[in-house]
Amino acid sequence: PDVQGSEDSRQIAINKVGVKDIRYPITLHCPATGGTQGTVANVNMYVGLPHYQKGTHMSRFLEVLNKHHDSLRSDEIVDVCQEIKTRLNAETAHLELSFPYFIDKKAPVSGQIGKIDLEVKLECTSNHKDDFVMTVMVPATSLCPCSKEISAYGAHNQRCHMIASVRLKKGERMWIEDLFEIVEQCASTQVFAVLKRPDEKWVTEAAYDNPKFVEDIVRDLARAMEADDRIAWYSVSSENFESIHNHNAYAVVERWKDS
Amino acid sequence: PDVQGSEDSRQIAINKVGVKDIRYPITLHCPATGGTQGTVANVNMYVGLPHYQKGTHMSRFLEVLNKHHDSLRSDEIVDVCQEIKTRLNAETAHLELSFPYFIDKKAPVSGQIGKIDLEVKLECTSNHKDDFVMTVMVPATSLCPCSKEISAYGAHNQRCHMIASVRLKKGERMWIEDLFEIVEQCASTQVFAVLKRPDEKWVTEAAYDNPKFVEDIVRDLARAMEADDRIAWYSVSSENFESIHNHNAYAVVERWKDS
Amino acid sequence: PDVQGSEDSRQIAINKVGVKDIRYPITLHCPATGGTQGTVANVNMYVGLPHYQKGTHMSRFLEVLNKHHDSLRSDEIVDVCQEIKTRLNAETAHLELSFPYFIDKKAPVSGQIGKIDLEVKLECTSNHKDDFVMTVMVPATSLCPCSKEISAYGAHNQRCHMIASVRLKKGERMWIEDLFEIVEQCASTQVFAVLKRPDEKWVTEAAYDNPKFVEDIVRDLARAMEADDRIAWYSVSSENFESIHNHNAYAVVERWKDS
Amino acid sequence: PDVQGSEDSRQIAINKVGVKDIRYPITLHCPATGGTQGTVANVNMYVGLPHYQKGTHMSRFLEVLNKHHDSLRSDEIVDVCQEIKTRLNAETAHLELSFPYFIDKKAPVSGQIGKIDLEVKLECTSNHKDDFVMTVMVPATSLCPCSKEISAYGAHNQRCHMIASVRLKKGERMWIEDLFEIVEQCASTQVFAVLKRPDEKWVTEAAYDNPKFVEDIVRDLARAMEADDRIAWYSVSSENFESIHNHNAYAVVERWKDS
Repeated sequence: PDVQGSEDSRQIAINKVGVKDIRYPITLHCPATGGTQGTVANVNMYVGLPHYQKGTHMSRFLEVLNKHHDSLRSDEIVDVCQEIKTRLNAETAHLELSFPYFIDKKAPVSGQIGKIDLEVKLECTSNHKDDFVMTVMVPATSLCPCSKEISAYGAHNQRCHMIASVRLKKGERMWIEDLFEIVEQCASTQVFAVLKRPDEKWVTEAAYDNPKFVEDIVRDLARAMEADDRIAWYSVSSENFESIHNHNAYAVVERWKDS
Repeated sequence: PDVQGSEDSRQIAINKVGVKDIRYPITLHCPATGGTQGTVANVNMYVGLPHYQKGTHMSRFLEVLNKHHDSLRSDEIVDVCQEIKTRLNAETAHLELSFPYFIDKKAPVSGQIGKIDLEVKLECTSNHKDDFVMTVMVPATSLCPCSKEISAYGAHNQRCHMIASVRLKKGERMWIEDLFEIVEQCASTQVFAVLKRPDEKWVTEAAYDNPKFVEDIVRDLARAMEADDRIAWYSVSSENFESIHNHNAYAVVERWKDS
Repeated sequence: PDVQGSEDSRQIAINKVGVKDIRYPITLHCPATGGTQGTVANVNMYVGLPHYQKGTHMSRFLEVLNKHHDSLRSDEIVDVCQEIKTRLNAETAHLELSFPYFIDKKAPVSGQIGKIDLEVKLECTSNHKDDFVMTVMVPATSLCPCSKEISAYGAHNQRCHMIASVRLKKGERMWIEDLFEIVEQCASTQVFAVLKRPDEKWVTEAAYDNPKFVEDIVRDLARAMEADDRIAWYSVSSENFESIHNHNAYAVVERWKDS
Repeated sequence: PDVQGSEDSRQIAINKVGVKDIRYPITLHCPATGGTQGTVANVNMYVGLPHYQKGTHMSRFLEVLNKHHDSLRSDEIVDVCQEIKTRLNAETAHLELSFPYFIDKKAPVSGQIGKIDLEVKLECTSNHKDDFVMTVMVPATSLCPCSKEISAYGAHNQRCHMIASVRLKKGERMWIEDLFEIVEQCASTQVFAVLKRPDEKWVTEAAYDNPKFVEDIVRDLARAMEADDRIAWYSVSSENFESIHNHNAYAVVERWKDS
């Protein structure tokens, strides 16, 4: 008796049903660097379910994940999402992968290399077309212009997390590294894993020379998104972990460029 | 020199800017029970910022919170949101409060009272009108119909978290307790803080007598939302912490009832 | 048939068995301020189980919690722990409560009042004697002496979380407010919920005037603990959320004063 | 001016100072399978600091991590810890790595392969000797004996997380896979990533045939640790996410075998 395959009479279609919070290893090909990177993703996989169908087939989601997890590319996520749609006999499929991603960065003076950890999210919804959204979270430093201006010396500064999500125009491509490079320019200064003394002097002064409110950061992020012709839609935010409060400052700008 | 008040030339309006992840004590009046309840909220407060204005006034958000935190009612959140709009000279204001909320429940046989902890979220966006969304997360038990049907004995079951968000029709009112009572009927059985032996027998058998897929739970939640005339829009989901996997089953239904 | 009460032949005594991650509202009496405070605790309750006993009685833990949750005092936690021991017929009982706790603080210049959120943990182990540990986490600001010294201007600073745990000498008493006041003196400067412009100038300059490594903060915390005669044992730490890295600096000192 | 290298007069030695919550990619060699596995670790690295020394050299920790992160073996963690000690001129060094780790498991009937995610922690303290602790968290299913016995049908069951930490006798070796295999035997039944219908029947009935209290699970874990001659010390626990409550059952046994 196929319980999931039987009829349902409640007349309620389900937007998304599937598996959530699967922790799985993934191997990403990085066309921007020519290498590969192993990381660990949190994965959600769903389909839409028509009102007359009682249930979906949960184990098939895992079978699709098993087939693809060890060889993924950010621009091929849409193919995996299409495969979920086919394998589950669905009209709409959703795939979400969130994972830490590491980029080598040289310290500004000593040139020492360390890794910086981004948080990346790749999301796709596929039905008759594919809607793909790429998101990166980039850690950085913000320094407060008001604090600098009103104080005889010093200025409060803090770690901030900038997040940029983009939808691309038809036929365009963007790698994680591309989006990271655009975003990391927009704070007061960048953060690094390894900083020797001359590096620390450099970042301290760079931040003081480039004070930005959370409003400035998201505006500069938005301008960078506006300037990149590949991008059709963006949502950019910054969360600043204020050193003078136990709460955060936050701002977000979201826009379809055609509108 | 009022840095925040100066002009900005970047031509980028900001959707939301403000303070995030403020942890603050709140006192809620509970018209449904006639009492009050002290709890601790995570609070976000934002305004929209026009393109020509450089910055907002962060400290004013906290002043509004300080004024109201010790006497709130779920249906008066819109008034606080309107006050943010006025106090910050903004056209749009956003207020989000998330907090645990406790409801006394009697065990099904022994009648012993224990508290069950919901997670409640109240969100409001105010500009020329107010958009208010109330969300409750209700823990419960789900038992798998397929496992029951195919097995000689037993059936896998697990804790699940049902979430219901609602927008109400103009002039309608709904308390946290009201929404909780609708939601807690929709799983295989309810959970309790204190269960004596006869209670444990009761809930074990009740779950076995009422098997539900995650799809069944969200459909029954959706039917309950459809049946309540106060509700204009709803989003209902269930996340089942499958006892046979280390990942979860999940489903969601979202609908404007007029459409 | 009392399954839990039957004999066990495996010869394994259990150090702790009980209930974990109960979220419950608590009302704390605050002798230091003369008031009460409602908050929400995460509660763990355990007993030791001798090798010959098969199981404990889980529902009794909740009955004890139900009896006391709405009227607690930090120094009466030991009485509740003793009651668990008695109610569960155990030789050893453990009680752990973690909760946010709020203290009114005046901004340094404007005098505006805002609440600062501590994280408090009260732990007790009771057998023939009681071992009580009180812990507070206090948010603050740290400013790096090295960054200040080597840079032409500015200095990186960031939010830090100082944690102090204490065991008291026999007969001594210390309130949450007491420990908070000792700890908040030990960072570069304090954080506040509401800061007007003159306050922001004050905290910016205060931090710059008082640079401290994470090592300095824990040493100053340790000296403060050494100086308080009520304290028999302490563990003090600071975690600094470095604004120039995406990782944290951390230090801890722990000592029995008699040794 | 070497601020960190200057003298400190406060007479307070620091137990641990260093870097915390570094997120870094690591590549682990798996001698038990002959392969390697890429994952993402949360890393803490500390040294003890004598009372007369003002500060440690934070950037050196990252240099050691950079040197070793892409080629690690669980039994060589002690060598990395010794290298921290040397590189930082310290008498004591501490190294902690926590990471998800994946093991291929065949479904019990269909034989389909899926990955199960453990959480592994490797900790080492090195001074004149090395103290190495390996911890694995294994997800599984528990089914309540009391619920089974008192109910006419069914029995509540739920996901549980078993944790085992071990110290080994001198000269002994144990791989992550070894400890996993010992632990996964101790619950009511195992969990899997992919389960087809016959597998689901198998695990449902297996759990019902093998009911265990949280007390039974930790006792069986303890007996398995007692039976393995490589193990000198162990701490074993289980946390059961009770399907009939919104809180958890928990038990722990900890023992030095010689004592």
